[in-house]
Amino acid sequence: MKPLKAILLTCLITIFSCKNEETKENTPKISISNTSLERVEPPNWFIGFKNSSLQLLVKEPNIGNFTPSISYKGVSIEKVHTAKSPNYLFIDLKIDASTKAGKFDIVFKDKKGTKKTHTYELKKREKPADNYVGFNSSDVIYLITPDRFANADLSNDIGSKTSKSNENVESFQFLKENKIDRNDDYARHGGDIKGITNHLDYINEMGFTAIWSSPLLTNDMPKQSYHGYAITDLYEIDPRFGTLADYRELADKAKEKGIKLIMDQVANHCGSEHWWMKDLPFEDWVNYQENFENKGELITSNHRRTSNQDVYASKIDKKQNADGWFVSTMPDLNQKNSFMAKYIIQNSIWWIETIGLGGIRQDTYPYPDKQFMSDWAGAIMTEYPNFSIVGEEWSYNPLLIGYWQKGANNRDGYESNLTSTMDFAMQRKVVEALNEKESWDTGLVKIYEGLANDFHYASPKDILIFPDNHDMSRIYTQLNGDLENTKMALAMYLMMPRTPQIYYGTEILMDDFKKPGDHGLIRTDFPGGFKDDKINAFTGKGLKPSQKNMQSFLKKLLNFRKNSKAIHEGKTVHFAPFMGTYFLFRVLKDEVVVNIINKNENPITIDLKRYKEIGLQGKILKNIITEEKFTWGDSIELSKKGSILLTTKLN
Amino acid sequence: MKPLKAILLTCLITIFSCKNEETKENTPKISISNTSLERVEPPNWFIGFKNSSLQLLVKEPNIGNFTPSISYKGVSIEKVHTAKSPNYLFIDLKIDASTKAGKFDIVFKDKKGTKKTHTYELKKREKPADNYVGFNSSDVIYLITPDRFANADLSNDIGSKTSKSNENVESFQFLKENKIDRNDDYARHGGDIKGITNHLDYINEMGFTAIWSSPLLTNDMPKQSYHGYAITDLYEIDPRFGTLADYRELADKAKEKGIKLIMDQVANHCGSEHWWMKDLPFEDWVNYQENFENKGELITSNHRRTSNQDVYASKIDKKQNADGWFVSTMPDLNQKNSFMAKYIIQNSIWWIETIGLGGIRQDTYPYPDKQFMSDWAGAIMTEYPNFSIVGEEWSYNPLLIGYWQKGANNRDGYESNLTSTMDFAMQRKVVEALNEKESWDTGLVKIYEGLANDFHYASPKDILIFPDNHDMSRIYTQLNGDLENTKMALAMYLMMPRTPQIYYGTEILMDDFKKPGDHGLIRTDFPGGFKDDKINAFTGKGLKPSQKNMQSFLKKLLNFRKNSKAIHEGKTVHFAPFMGTYFLFRVLKDEVVVNIINKNENPITIDLKRYKEIGLQGKILKNIITEEKFTWGDSIELSKKGSILLTTKLN
Repeated sequence: MKPLKAILLTCLITIFSCKNEETKENTPKISISNTSLERVEPPNWFIGFKNSSLQLLVKEPNIGNFTPSISYKGVSIEKVHTAKSPNYLFIDLKIDASTKAGKFDIVFKDKKGTKKTHTYELKKREKPADNYVGFNSSDVIYLITPDRFANADLSNDIGSKTSKSNENVESFQFLKENKIDRNDDYARHGGDIKGITNHLDYINEMGFTAIWSSPLLTNDMPKQSYHGYAITDLYEIDPRFGTLADYRELADKAKEKGIKLIMDQVANHCGSEHWWMKDLPFEDWVNYQENFENKGELITSNHRRTSNQDVYASKIDKKQNADGWFVSTMPDLNQKNSFMAKYIIQNSIWWIETIGLGGIRQDTYPYPDKQFMSDWAGAIMTEYPNFSIVGEEWSYNPLLIGYWQKGANNRDGYESNLTSTMDFAMQRKVVEALNEKESWDTGLVKIYEGLANDFHYASPKDILIFPDNHDMSRIYTQLNGDLENTKMALAMYLMMPRTPQIYYGTEILMDDFKKPGDHGLIRTDFPGGFKDDKINAFTGKGLKPSQKNMQSFLKKLLNFRKNSKAIHEGKTVHFAPFMGTYFLFRVLKDEVVVNIINKNENPITIDLKRYKEIGLQGKILKNIITEEKFTWGDSIELSKKGSILLTTKLN
Repeated sequence: MKPLKAILLTCLITIFSCKNEETKENTPKISISNTSLERVEPPNWFIGFKNSSLQLLVKEPNIGNFTPSISYKGVSIEKVHTAKSPNYLFIDLKIDASTKAGKFDIVFKDKKGTKKTHTYELKKREKPADNYVGFNSSDVIYLITPDRFANADLSNDIGSKTSKSNENVESFQFLKENKIDRNDDYARHGGDIKGITNHLDYINEMGFTAIWSSPLLTNDMPKQSYHGYAITDLYEIDPRFGTLADYRELADKAKEKGIKLIMDQVANHCGSEHWWMKDLPFEDWVNYQENFENKGELITSNHRRTSNQDVYASKIDKKQNADGWFVSTMPDLNQKNSFMAKYIIQNSIWWIETIGLGGIRQDTYPYPDKQFMSDWAGAIMTEYPNFSIVGEEWSYNPLLIGYWQKGANNRDGYESNLTSTMDFAMQRKVVEALNEKESWDTGLVKIYEGLANDFHYASPKDILIFPDNHDMSRIYTQLNGDLENTKMALAMYLMMPRTPQIYYGTEILMDDFKKPGDHGLIRTDFPGGFKDDKINAFTGKGLKPSQKNMQSFLKKLLNFRKNSKAIHEGKTVHFAPFMGTYFLFRVLKDEVVVNIINKNENPITIDLKRYKEIGLQGKILKNIITEEKFTWGDSIELSKKGSILLTTKLN
């Protein structure tokens, strides 16, 4: 393996110092003076945190032989740690509450009198911690695979004919192997941060109120770097996606529209080409590195995630789940190493503060050391009490979904500090409900009994629900290309007491019929996001009627949901399925929202007396989609299969 | 409907007064003198309960016009309640702690000076309340459908040529319609209590330590009375099964062998021919009686049992689940009526005390009012702190299985006071594990991930596990007639941290292939239990080799389990499935029990290093079935599909 080029530093400085720049250029030229060290991370810090400690990772040839000193009021060195590698120092700083923002030198001296200096900055925080408000049940999150959404900046398209300059990325190892090839579902397609920023109007007008982009950090990996989950630098935006300034611009412009930006973070693993893999500070910085390096053996996770809860799980199963590499190209970070633990926590806080995030989505949640994950989320929530974090566990088991949420009241005393988990169970129940024929225990009863499990959750409304995501077959494919069923599913996900997330392209019925479940195919390019696209979903040009139908349906529903406090916070009342129908009510004060799912192809009349406890008798309701009026009387005629969405809110 | 004949009284007196008789006659002739009332229930009571209150139900024409009085030291009338029907009185008695056992008259007088007298007895309790020890994980329960197990007393066979006398049952309405017909799976077959008593040696030698017989109380119903769940008199043994004396004899003789007797009770409903249905004390004594009686409408339960937990369930769904009739022949008792509530609680306690029970199995647990069920179990457990009660909920959802167990720590604060629930989830997981091909998420992983859910339960070992029961397809049928898989399933159920229950006939591979799931067929006659049976499973005569194989396997395993504290109480350690095998260890101090499930048809060698944390290296283990020795070394060769059951206990 090639050693990491020192020239990386240039990029790093470029990125962390451009934070406050208003420029839209990709490579602002401001740099911090008189630094000569390879890496100091976090690249800067902030005053005013509740936690007054900061641990700097310093990377520099033979820095282990040097002693650092700082002369700045309110900043003191508490302890200096050498590492197994001589090229690292970890410096514990204490930052007094009274410390002023500013720059100071960290002076490193060795016994021979050699001196190195690094200027470090403590910035002022831009806004009160309480103002970092995370996503919640009032939001609908638009999940984007950034490489596949929209390519607005052709200058960062590696190997593309349209690329004007690749200067800012030429230092990377594998960029040249990552030429854009839109015919290869596993290659880079060129989408970038500016592609998202440029389409904020579309996202906003559709009615989404939050964006979760899959990771934007550098994945300097030889293959399949487009997905972003093999991070090789935790403090750098992948230059193919843009710059730190671009990311900040996205956050700022989104915020202007009331859209929260959720960052996808990965505490479990890094990419095998992460810079530190060539020179690990400690032997236990990543798990199983000895096997990997010395024996050529690679031990991947057994993926037995139940070992996190299982009181009978063997030690070896627990260890292999938590310590095994996620896949062979993703080394497992050892969060039980306290330096690694601090590194990850500080990295998360740095991004929240630097970008002004509106939430974190934590990848592969049940794989890292679970006590660390609790500490990690706890550290964040302590600093940002109104923030939110969703952890990904792909499980259909409500016991596990519930286990990870804050306030779970677990028998083992485990408290995750996570505001949100992911409801793969309800996701599937809705699909089964629509795909299956009605019977005693199939069909709509899956929704009824699935939601009944909410009694177990600490806070159902904060749990994420989704028709699909970047790892799953598209909802339109799951529902066998049935438009009406897809609309019914969407209505259900958006009306239930949850925080919904919708994957880009769902609004135009993107599918993966050709090879169901194929990741590259699932993450198909969004039409209109790329130069010369003949179809443009942003404008509607070239869309099929069914696509327009869905886009318009979703736009109406999302924009209604945006202002419906009954959906955000109202109580839920539902009735056991009856004659192929299912009635869900959301009620808050005088606002009532009704979702009637009707699976009958032929007209049917439903006696409304059964639902009288809701108190709608004689009330005039509005159909959320058609805006038609309906008077809630003795019965309702349902003419054909579909969802009827009604509200008493006549705004 | 015909009015209930007053002659019923004769039977009643016969039954409750024979308790202390040592006689083995069916109809002891002891009766209580000078009583002239139709019914007083409970028919007697006991001194020395923690609860000093007793509520008597008195049934007698126009008794509502009478005022009762009692003159007996320590017994006072606290309150007298008339009912809607003039033919009832409910008398609240207070029994002081110092009250002596004995008989006393209750004298009833009306304004005209009419006087009626009933002699009531307070008996001494036979043993300390702590000595009523319920079933637990050290037990294996033999579930019997008494009509189908063994017919030992031909004199109670209605309409049978062998019946010597039907005197004791001639007062019943429908007995003559209930002639024995062994060719009809839904008719009476003649099995009785003495049939169980006479085969206690077999049950004991097989290794069972508890017997749960489905209900033995009178089901004076026109059809399908054989199953016992449509009780028409809660204080009377069905004469076709025998007498109270027979029941007590069964309990006593079982106890001599260390076998606990578990009574199947039904708090939710009664049979539609229950004596009180002709003259209900209150309009709300049973639910929906008005509809039933006045409109000819019958409202059965919606069976939406999740409405018990569901925080979104509509009021009407909750009400229809709890208040609807279980089926049209089983009226729903209204436990929210405080007189009914007391009646049911006292009835349960009367049976525990009268028979000396070793546990209660409560039918259709999620159908009665759930607060009442908590009070019911609480009242019993307060009187008998070492007792045990298992509630039947047929659910595959661990959330519901967990919800009902004592100590569930439910969010809604609900505390069932039930020591045990039923694990239909794990029952099914084991079957799936064996029927499915191995893959990432099918096959043995179903057991591994199923048991992982135990983290959620208050006390997994107290939960009932079973290969099947009287309502389910036979395990041999579930496993498609695969003997080896059936043995593997049995080994799994008996080794896991649970309290196992095995249905009669499982030991000889009884099946329902002809009509899978058919209740009448599932409850097939046990061969050898009936006169002229050509096959006799008690002696082994005529059994097929596969049946003998299973019977002998189970006998060895049950008798081993009987003394294995590691299985009863040991910690459990298991390993994720590997190469078609699954290893489960139970460990208590120096005793280790190993269950290796091997699904490979062809020989396979498993490296044992993975299991080293158990500490068995170099130890000599004994095969529980073959008694062969095995030294735990580097590997184990598994020659063919099957369970390997090993132990270090060399007794």
